[in-house]
Amino acid sequence: MAETIIKIDLNKSPYENEKVHNRWHPDIPMAAMVKPGDDFIVECHDWTGGQINNDDNAEDVRDVDLTQVHFLSGPVGVEGAEPGDLLVVDILDIGTFEESQWGFNGFFSKQNGGGFLTEHFPEAQKTIWDFNGMFTKSRHIPGVEFAGLIHPGLIGCLPSKGMLDEWNKREKELYDTEPDRVPGLVNLPFADTAHMGKLNGDARNAAAAEGARTVPPREHGGNCDIKDLSRGSQIYFPVYVKDAGLSVGDLHFSQGDGEITFCGAIEMAGWIHMRVNLIKGGMEKYAIKNPIFKPSPMAPKYDDYLIFEGISVDEEGKQHYLDVHIAYRQACLNAIEYLKKFGYSGAQAYSLLGCAPVQGHISGVVDVPNACATLWLPTDIFEFDLKPGVDGPQHSVAGSMDVPLAKDK
Amino acid sequence: MAETIIKIDLNKSPYENEKVHNRWHPDIPMAAMVKPGDDFIVECHDWTGGQINNDDNAEDVRDVDLTQVHFLSGPVGVEGAEPGDLLVVDILDIGTFEESQWGFNGFFSKQNGGGFLTEHFPEAQKTIWDFNGMFTKSRHIPGVEFAGLIHPGLIGCLPSKGMLDEWNKREKELYDTEPDRVPGLVNLPFADTAHMGKLNGDARNAAAAEGARTVPPREHGGNCDIKDLSRGSQIYFPVYVKDAGLSVGDLHFSQGDGEITFCGAIEMAGWIHMRVNLIKGGMEKYAIKNPIFKPSPMAPKYDDYLIFEGISVDEEGKQHYLDVHIAYRQACLNAIEYLKKFGYSGAQAYSLLGCAPVQGHISGVVDVPNACATLWLPTDIFEFDLKPGVDGPQHSVAGSMDVPLAKDK
Amino acid sequence: MAETIIKIDLNKSPYENEKVHNRWHPDIPMAAMVKPGDDFIVECHDWTGGQINNDDNAEDVRDVDLTQVHFLSGPVGVEGAEPGDLLVVDILDIGTFEESQWGFNGFFSKQNGGGFLTEHFPEAQKTIWDFNGMFTKSRHIPGVEFAGLIHPGLIGCLPSKGMLDEWNKREKELYDTEPDRVPGLVNLPFADTAHMGKLNGDARNAAAAEGARTVPPREHGGNCDIKDLSRGSQIYFPVYVKDAGLSVGDLHFSQGDGEITFCGAIEMAGWIHMRVNLIKGGMEKYAIKNPIFKPSPMAPKYDDYLIFEGISVDEEGKQHYLDVHIAYRQACLNAIEYLKKFGYSGAQAYSLLGCAPVQGHISGVVDVPNACATLWLPTDIFEFDLKPGVDGPQHSVAGSMDVPLAKDK
Amino acid sequence: MAETIIKIDLNKSPYENEKVHNRWHPDIPMAAMVKPGDDFIVECHDWTGGQINNDDNAEDVRDVDLTQVHFLSGPVGVEGAEPGDLLVVDILDIGTFEESQWGFNGFFSKQNGGGFLTEHFPEAQKTIWDFNGMFTKSRHIPGVEFAGLIHPGLIGCLPSKGMLDEWNKREKELYDTEPDRVPGLVNLPFADTAHMGKLNGDARNAAAAEGARTVPPREHGGNCDIKDLSRGSQIYFPVYVKDAGLSVGDLHFSQGDGEITFCGAIEMAGWIHMRVNLIKGGMEKYAIKNPIFKPSPMAPKYDDYLIFEGISVDEEGKQHYLDVHIAYRQACLNAIEYLKKFGYSGAQAYSLLGCAPVQGHISGVVDVPNACATLWLPTDIFEFDLKPGVDGPQHSVAGSMDVPLAKDK
Repeated sequence: MAETIIKIDLNKSPYENEKVHNRWHPDIPMAAMVKPGDDFIVECHDWTGGQINNDDNAEDVRDVDLTQVHFLSGPVGVEGAEPGDLLVVDILDIGTFEESQWGFNGFFSKQNGGGFLTEHFPEAQKTIWDFNGMFTKSRHIPGVEFAGLIHPGLIGCLPSKGMLDEWNKREKELYDTEPDRVPGLVNLPFADTAHMGKLNGDARNAAAAEGARTVPPREHGGNCDIKDLSRGSQIYFPVYVKDAGLSVGDLHFSQGDGEITFCGAIEMAGWIHMRVNLIKGGMEKYAIKNPIFKPSPMAPKYDDYLIFEGISVDEEGKQHYLDVHIAYRQACLNAIEYLKKFGYSGAQAYSLLGCAPVQGHISGVVDVPNACATLWLPTDIFEFDLKPGVDGPQHSVAGSMDVPLAKDK
Repeated sequence: MAETIIKIDLNKSPYENEKVHNRWHPDIPMAAMVKPGDDFIVECHDWTGGQINNDDNAEDVRDVDLTQVHFLSGPVGVEGAEPGDLLVVDILDIGTFEESQWGFNGFFSKQNGGGFLTEHFPEAQKTIWDFNGMFTKSRHIPGVEFAGLIHPGLIGCLPSKGMLDEWNKREKELYDTEPDRVPGLVNLPFADTAHMGKLNGDARNAAAAEGARTVPPREHGGNCDIKDLSRGSQIYFPVYVKDAGLSVGDLHFSQGDGEITFCGAIEMAGWIHMRVNLIKGGMEKYAIKNPIFKPSPMAPKYDDYLIFEGISVDEEGKQHYLDVHIAYRQACLNAIEYLKKFGYSGAQAYSLLGCAPVQGHISGVVDVPNACATLWLPTDIFEFDLKPGVDGPQHSVAGSMDVPLAKDK
Repeated sequence: MAETIIKIDLNKSPYENEKVHNRWHPDIPMAAMVKPGDDFIVECHDWTGGQINNDDNAEDVRDVDLTQVHFLSGPVGVEGAEPGDLLVVDILDIGTFEESQWGFNGFFSKQNGGGFLTEHFPEAQKTIWDFNGMFTKSRHIPGVEFAGLIHPGLIGCLPSKGMLDEWNKREKELYDTEPDRVPGLVNLPFADTAHMGKLNGDARNAAAAEGARTVPPREHGGNCDIKDLSRGSQIYFPVYVKDAGLSVGDLHFSQGDGEITFCGAIEMAGWIHMRVNLIKGGMEKYAIKNPIFKPSPMAPKYDDYLIFEGISVDEEGKQHYLDVHIAYRQACLNAIEYLKKFGYSGAQAYSLLGCAPVQGHISGVVDVPNACATLWLPTDIFEFDLKPGVDGPQHSVAGSMDVPLAKDK
Repeated sequence: MAETIIKIDLNKSPYENEKVHNRWHPDIPMAAMVKPGDDFIVECHDWTGGQINNDDNAEDVRDVDLTQVHFLSGPVGVEGAEPGDLLVVDILDIGTFEESQWGFNGFFSKQNGGGFLTEHFPEAQKTIWDFNGMFTKSRHIPGVEFAGLIHPGLIGCLPSKGMLDEWNKREKELYDTEPDRVPGLVNLPFADTAHMGKLNGDARNAAAAEGARTVPPREHGGNCDIKDLSRGSQIYFPVYVKDAGLSVGDLHFSQGDGEITFCGAIEMAGWIHMRVNLIKGGMEKYAIKNPIFKPSPMAPKYDDYLIFEGISVDEEGKQHYLDVHIAYRQACLNAIEYLKKFGYSGAQAYSLLGCAPVQGHISGVVDVPNACATLWLPTDIFEFDLKPGVDGPQHSVAGSMDVPLAKDK
């Protein structure tokens, strides 16, 4: 078995582990060093560092401290890596801990970050998913079981100082356009809860004050939440600092395109087995700005879909110009209304779209003024026939436990 | 062989064919009537009605009259269809005409509608694609050949008067926010070039004055440009008027998600073989607002992808808020830069992304402030190895004919 | 459109067409010449040359003259092809004739060739399949509709004289082991009904006397009946004579692995569009004895299977040694018994296994004394749920028209 | 995590573990009891019980004691199961032991069982495969790496006494036709090395004397070696005795159709996680004789194949009658010759066909006298381009370590 170069203890705070960090900054020291060609294992906290429990109460989702997220394992230094190289990462496998065979999904309160459909689901809710080998199901959402397309929501290399400055500058500019917005437009650096790995004292404080938050995806990859960047895939990351500094976390047992529930996919703690190699000067050779990747040869084959269309006319009937975000929101809402006809509550349907291997396609982006997005719902994950028929829905899941909700305080 | 209920003559103007129309209006008389369970064939002009030629000169794309588009075949009336029903359409097959074994793709001039990347490709350009059975290749883009995922870009039922009024109202409101924009935000009704099928005289003029343009997708489906709504798929359309009134056109031999080049996919004339059935009261039974569909059991299997990420920071480095449109644009630009390393011109790469069975996924839409979109480029359509390697690109297609361009007048 | 270099007339006997032949012999003159890189179209009779009718009477299947089959279109000469080359054939497309939108499947009488399960179905029976675009269904087998994986059952190049002699020698040796067997072990040359293309007079008679029958697959490919050698595939054929001499026929709209019903798949007349190229000296370069091929990128995606196992213990309980033929027969019989529980007759089930895109896998061939074969039945071709459940089969198709049978005379 | 109801110790002989057995007999006591709906984990020895080592010496394969195999874990009793029921088994997951990240493949000496190509490879050889997460590669076969389609080679329920007697009777009859054959036609009961689980004393001896060997697949499933019966699949087993008695072993990291190398696939020790349910009276409800199953939604997607044909004319040119076994052997030999052109030794190619996710299809079984079988070689598992081209093979793997061989003593 490959060596586990970063270990965690689920019973301890991630702040106690100096091979973990929760901000991006070039000064964070390498947690471990490896060589090109090596394969190794890294253990990861769930993205909240254990703030969410396996129970039927959503108060932990309501009260979560989002300034702490995401707890990442790393950075892993790769000998010989230099700015301009491509770091080739093979995700050889991802797994769960024997003592932690469950994951969570939730919607944040609109007061605390919200989600894609926060206007429709403004309060904190939570579903728990049990893992049964490669399958999962939830006691909060009846009638559905599926295999996990397991992947890291967040993975990437440390930014250079110049890149970090650019991130902070452009995000601050956006923030300043509407600083009081709820939920906020941007999460600015926040030193209090920053965990800078091995960095201590003044160096820690200086870095914490400007360390980029981990929420958005950026040029280096980061929190892309791409469900297809799963075990078996091969990723080419831009390198910005000496030794690259690869960090990873936010493991998902499964997720739908868009991760629309924000909290998020089926979130879990676990481990990831990776192999690294270098393409020297690869950024220039291939004109790479953002990471590129090849998907895994192994993925759940739920190939029979029911596909919902959405266009960029919002819920109020207002016309927007080629807005894919709104079009996808309509497709999601259409799917939720459809699922409600089979007895699901809106919250069950919403959570399902965030968790199952749902595809979201940008179908048309030029037919002014309407963008068209499609949501692909795999029918084989349901225990009953979901397709339309002459007689209307022939099955109802209603009556089972609904999705726990915690009212805003 | 099923009966061909609408025939066209490629050598005549579509305005001479009263079973063709180019606006949406409930008063357009049915071109033909069928019964539930029937299957039948409908012939279609290319979307421009023959304005584009199979040559190496892009002036026809530059000078195209977009007020004429799209020429649709129909409406086909279905006996017994009433508002509130679902019209189930099986696309049994789609084919080309023996005498017309080619299609076109192009970018409009920014002065005349532009395209997804019009800031980067502001002038009219055109590629021609030859069909070889189920495959296609272009003399303007070397090194690539692929099977067509043939589909109608535009299909849907007639709107009711109330729905038409709603379309016109909301689109006019958007138009009024920036009436002088180039390209325009919206295409308003335009009576001069309206073709209202069998409608004549005052009735024609009244309908033409308010008939909705066919460019955007809307609640009824319409110009969705969904590549996966291909032959073999089964679609459930909302019905708004007596007899439904199904119209279809804008056939594509192949298209990438987003149809980013706008003109458009690989555009062609041809025929479509359909079967219709009804689910009475289906809109209410299944809470249907926009069409839903099941994809075809038969589709080109180009399953090995190179995937490009894009985030919602634009080309100038400006930060946008969860804007999937901008994120997908970045993913497309990243792919174009990559392809240029193999010798393609930017225009060749852009056209290819518009034509090949490229997937566009909405990968992350909640990680403020960046949306993340991915463009999936199928590697098996290339005659050479497109994957990154230690030695850099090992093949170049440079030197062949580039994409014809017509300068703005 | 590519040129049609061989045309047929469905209203005339194939014996009248000198671009058709029904035996393999190197002396058959080329019917047409093409160049490497050319693509062209060839029209084909159904394999029996029109002996079977679209009706509900199986007497034509009972009385078929099998000494006439298969009627092949060709040989097509390829300029520059020499013995030892590989002829690369791209199957660009295959289609039906507008006036002939149907196909047939049948079981021969055991007196006249039988089939894989002739002991169980000893008399002639026939099913007719209607084509609806890319789909087919049969009035003789309710509850099932599927897309065709259309392919030529028979395709290959002319043998050299030496190869022909070898075929005749080895087959005669087998024949002689049991010359009176019914059905026969081998079909020997038979001059009376031989159609030698353009060959006339003494030359025709000499060739007819030794021309190999077209029934078995051999080194050159020939009657392989490989369902996956479908449109879109690319095949590498060994070349044995100057100009190669490519012939093709026995088009199938669809077939299951094994073509167990023998008469055969869904048999049809139609056309095939091909492109040819050469790899000079390719047989030696790649050690090619039999053809090799790459499957099509486009195939019906019926990916949800119910899989039946069979072992090499026969219906009488007798143990055989690693006999895959018997193991597959058991798997087929198991599937038939299963389908009968849903109301199908045995003949309906048998015909379905011969026609639908069923897979037959050689699963285990070393675990003495039992071979294990598996039959993969695609569940999505059925209009009802075929999977086992706690309550037993919930649907029955019984009561509809059964498969016509013609008693032996 | 589910409970591990059967544990093993890789450092101890399987004979010391009374929850293991190596013969089929209804008197073997249940090793553990579970209830319908339960899921649980069972650990398994490799099929030889640890006789093969991770080294470069094939003497252990030469000297293996095949009277000991296969060591199975079980029987697991299911409460309420009765003869005539179907036992529904969900394979939820399969995994390796952390301390045992490797597997073996080999060919037995012809003196000791041989393999599918034993006439061509008559002496013992061995390849070792290292596991890297979900991937594997071998130091003995360069240029290839692939994801495992992990599965149990052997799984099934205890036979009834009547069924056992039938097995022994029919196999003895075959054995008696050629008792001195090398390798043997049948493995008869052999008491000396029988391990009858918890059974002791006279009862053990009586059962051992007639307990069926585990080598062949039979009505109950058993040693089917079906690569697609992999983790994620759902199997319906006939039940013959009270409590069913499910046993499992012979785990494979990967295997090609046919398991042609006999020793066998990539053989490994590991664990399997299963869930059981019952369909009461299911054998009658669905006419089940042999197990049926649904394949996993998750499997390696190596969809680009090079396909080799074989016909039932043997290596000596002798004609056989519809013999699929011989046809598949020719397809395998054709593939081996092809691979040798890229520098592989015959033994490397043979081992690869036994280990990689190769498909074997029964393509034609009625075209007298030749059966046609196809071997589907996935091209994406190779690090170089395997397809034929005008210039011949452009890559050679020759020069690396070959497959260790141990000469017969």
